Amino acid sequence: MILLEGIAASPGIAIGKSLLKEDKEIEINKEKIKSEQVESEIEKLHDALAESKKSLLQLKEETAEKLGKEKAEIFGAHLMILDDPEVIPAFENKIKDDKLNAAAAVKAVIDQFAAMFAAMDDDYLRERGSDIKDVGLRVIKNILGIEDISDKISEDAIIIAEDLTPSDTAQLDTDKVLSFVTMDGSRTSHSAIMARSLGIPSVVGVGKTLFEKSENEMDIIVDGNSGKVYLNPDQSTLAEYKEKLEKYEAEQERLKAFKDQKAQTKDGYQVEVAGNMGNLKDVDPILANGGEGVGLFRSEFLYMDRNELPTEEEQFEVYKKATEKMGDRPLVIRTLDVGGDKELPYLDFPEEMNPFLGYRAIRVCLERDDIFKPQLRALLRAGLYGNIKIMFPMISSLDELLAAKAKVEEVKADLKAEGIDFNQNIDLGMMIEIPAAVMIADKLAKEVDFFSIGTNDLIQYTVAVDRMNEQIAEMHTPYHPAVLRLIKRTIEAGHAEDIWVGMCGEAAGEELLLPFLLGAGLDEFSMSAVSILKIKEILTKWDLDSAQKESAKILNLSTAAEVKAYLNKIKK
Amino acid sequence: MILLEGIAASPGIAIGKSLLKEDKEIEINKEKIKSEQVESEIEKLHDALAESKKSLLQLKEETAEKLGKEKAEIFGAHLMILDDPEVIPAFENKIKDDKLNAAAAVKAVIDQFAAMFAAMDDDYLRERGSDIKDVGLRVIKNILGIEDISDKISEDAIIIAEDLTPSDTAQLDTDKVLSFVTMDGSRTSHSAIMARSLGIPSVVGVGKTLFEKSENEMDIIVDGNSGKVYLNPDQSTLAEYKEKLEKYEAEQERLKAFKDQKAQTKDGYQVEVAGNMGNLKDVDPILANGGEGVGLFRSEFLYMDRNELPTEEEQFEVYKKATEKMGDRPLVIRTLDVGGDKELPYLDFPEEMNPFLGYRAIRVCLERDDIFKPQLRALLRAGLYGNIKIMFPMISSLDELLAAKAKVEEVKADLKAEGIDFNQNIDLGMMIEIPAAVMIADKLAKEVDFFSIGTNDLIQYTVAVDRMNEQIAEMHTPYHPAVLRLIKRTIEAGHAEDIWVGMCGEAAGEELLLPFLLGAGLDEFSMSAVSILKIKEILTKWDLDSAQKESAKILNLSTAAEVKAYLNKIKK
Repeated sequence: MILLEGIAASPGIAIGKSLLKEDKEIEINKEKIKSEQVESEIEKLHDALAESKKSLLQLKEETAEKLGKEKAEIFGAHLMILDDPEVIPAFENKIKDDKLNAAAAVKAVIDQFAAMFAAMDDDYLRERGSDIKDVGLRVIKNILGIEDISDKISEDAIIIAEDLTPSDTAQLDTDKVLSFVTMDGSRTSHSAIMARSLGIPSVVGVGKTLFEKSENEMDIIVDGNSGKVYLNPDQSTLAEYKEKLEKYEAEQERLKAFKDQKAQTKDGYQVEVAGNMGNLKDVDPILANGGEGVGLFRSEFLYMDRNELPTEEEQFEVYKKATEKMGDRPLVIRTLDVGGDKELPYLDFPEEMNPFLGYRAIRVCLERDDIFKPQLRALLRAGLYGNIKIMFPMISSLDELLAAKAKVEEVKADLKAEGIDFNQNIDLGMMIEIPAAVMIADKLAKEVDFFSIGTNDLIQYTVAVDRMNEQIAEMHTPYHPAVLRLIKRTIEAGHAEDIWVGMCGEAAGEELLLPFLLGAGLDEFSMSAVSILKIKEILTKWDLDSAQKESAKILNLSTAAEVKAYLNKIKK
Repeated sequence: MILLEGIAASPGIAIGKSLLKEDKEIEINKEKIKSEQVESEIEKLHDALAESKKSLLQLKEETAEKLGKEKAEIFGAHLMILDDPEVIPAFENKIKDDKLNAAAAVKAVIDQFAAMFAAMDDDYLRERGSDIKDVGLRVIKNILGIEDISDKISEDAIIIAEDLTPSDTAQLDTDKVLSFVTMDGSRTSHSAIMARSLGIPSVVGVGKTLFEKSENEMDIIVDGNSGKVYLNPDQSTLAEYKEKLEKYEAEQERLKAFKDQKAQTKDGYQVEVAGNMGNLKDVDPILANGGEGVGLFRSEFLYMDRNELPTEEEQFEVYKKATEKMGDRPLVIRTLDVGGDKELPYLDFPEEMNPFLGYRAIRVCLERDDIFKPQLRALLRAGLYGNIKIMFPMISSLDELLAAKAKVEEVKADLKAEGIDFNQNIDLGMMIEIPAAVMIADKLAKEVDFFSIGTNDLIQYTVAVDRMNEQIAEMHTPYHPAVLRLIKRTIEAGHAEDIWVGMCGEAAGEELLLPFLLGAGLDEFSMSAVSILKIKEILTKWDLDSAQKESAKILNLSTAAEVKAYLNKIKK
């Protein structure tokens, strides 16, 4: 048995078989073939091409169904490469003229094309180069009979990967994949956030040993609560975890009782418990877990894994579907937050020394009408179909907020002039995630309908700690008294102007922190779907008055350790 | 006439001749020489070697005198390379055997050595490779009769450079160099800070056009107040600036009246106006400008341009000399602040995605006794010779502050056990430069003798704006109401615990901001030497009561633009 430890990224327990996602170099025999082998190699080539097309078509359909047509288009592009009239003869000629076997022939052609595209001074074309490589790899694997990971995913697969990109996670078949474990990443990295919104247990940041110790088809236990990963667990550990898993599942079953109950304290004080989402498919788990709304729709996911900006129409469709699914429940959609750790290659932003302190989110949007206005138009139009609220990210000054509001007015005037219907009274709010915003929250509160505190970034700037930097990771904690005081200050400033104050950072779903946030007056708690039921349950154990008293005491503690210890003491 | 605009980095006006600091590739003729030329090329080689040694010796002596023996050692290392028994024969053989001319021979040998060192997996040795290249370049220049920039500096040189490293600026002969203008850099970059402490006018961040438009020996005007640079100015501009220069010099002359006056308001309320320094030689301009102390000695400059950590003894000597020069006046020495934009190659820190939010300053020192303890020992010992105060940078929590204080206690116990004398009652203070520190300043104030607000970093984290990022540079402003409120909160927390609160960021020397800071209760203003007299003068125009009233009004303004407009209105 090997025990590895990482960061508990998404709660729950999984017991299954490991499946390594490795992009190892495939070895290809480059010896010349004999003339009499040419024909059989060409046959192999065509078989592999046919097989590749078949699986691409299937992937395209499945993806369109699960994630929408736009995401599926990547496979359409791959298919087009295989249908290119120049490509097939190029493969064949390498076999005939250069006497390469089929795999080596494909590789030679692909390398040549890929190098050509890679040298181009244009991000879009360079991206095409990487598509060509992907397709080539698929064909080569088919020639050599190497199974693709997606073909191998069995009913109880636990993916072992270096890291998972948003697109990797979006393509994961959550009916089959039980869990994933990654070498890189932190609790607030995007793969961790995705794991929580998919509701599957996950451990990240295990380090290099993960790949040194693990093989395919090993028995494996992932404990997403503690961050432990067991490879080839012994019988007693396995028995122990099977029991834990049963208990966990029973607990989940028990919590379902809270699904249709209002989020309220035992003395009947109501708050809103909502979910965070990135993709349309995240709506279902939020509703299934009794979410009373969406406190954060990270719209940037619509902009990722693409080659150009999504059109107004594409966005409109997604927002409309999402709000229709949510019914009357509030759906807070955050306008594009790119930059920082979220790059969009097709926007071609400058390299920055400190991207988290750089040109991102509203700073970009206010300068780029071509990006901001189509999004605002789509949001205003979709606002007719449900309870959409627009939220601006990274506001650091009153000027920025007023400028963003002015853009909304401009867009409204355009829509009116064009005779296009939209929601004239859509609520406008802003993220509180920069210390400056907290310090002038009294001024900002006069200009918006709501605040939502983004703890991940707020902690990062307040404590001056990159939330992705593993060397100082333990400094990034919501329990720092400075962070708690900023939260309290924000809520007070909001309430003084009669607006509601929510929280859509990771801290909103921390069980331990709940009494503090409740007592401090937080109105809305937006979290990963998987945390909703538990938070609803804990709420019923508290009454408002005692939470308020505890909150006041906590605000006077000196260190994160004291805060945590105190919260553990009063935990119910 | 060509007008270029950059960032006003250090005030004043300079009129002189341009001198381009370019590291262009030198063209070397690589044609084979004839056999009969071998002897004369070897002769050229030896002449150049002798000349190189002579100038290196001279540089070594001059540097030792101006900047200390340690800084001079770099030239000692260069001399040793020329004395290496393998080197000279290698040069000669390239001439004799490969029939290269002397310059090409030197280049061939140097390139070979440099490549060898560059491939080594050790920072120290890689650094040696760059020494070898430097020496080689010197010899080649001597062979080809190319003048070195330092030989060419005339009485009225204005240096034009891509950027200046701390070591470049340290080597500048301020008797000769009137000013410098750089392509890169920002108001808070190190070259700008150095320019202000040297007291020479400077404009930075002019951009690429700087090199496209300028040549050596052009007439040039540098306006360090407005950020304007004129190349080949026309007669009327020249006349205008000559007048301005005279006025400026007359003003400087007039301000000298304040040199020996106490820093106080017209109603006799006293504050301390102090200077910021990086090197021993910065003490003189601070005293010459009537500085009443040093509010910030950036000790990291002792750690730069070296190949290893400075020893306790080396540091002790510098701190002792500095405090002796300052007499009874307070000398606040900040412990090592590396990381962020200040790298020390020999410490080999990990690459970071957001170095400003990373592993730096006290975060490093608390984990590295080998770095922190020798510095604390040197500071405690030097504390016997004057009024040294120790200041910790980048404190973000009470835990860190207590841990730093515990290190001081450990070091005191060690010194006592070793029977070494030191100042038992040295004052301990901390920088307030992270928003978290402001939010818990009430807790921190109980544990230190003083606070000093570092506005450059505080603004950076409060507004989430990298102070080096030119794309969002205008967001980095001390006039943001959030920053002013944090300053006020810090002062109140300090005064509630009866400790003094200073400011050692750039904002302390901003004339416009003075009434706000005075009225908010700031006790100590520490700035570039060049600003001291002007600030002392402005102080005499205000009385405390009206500054307090204005300060309260300013704290209720909404935007940086409003604050600036208001301060301009009440300016005296």
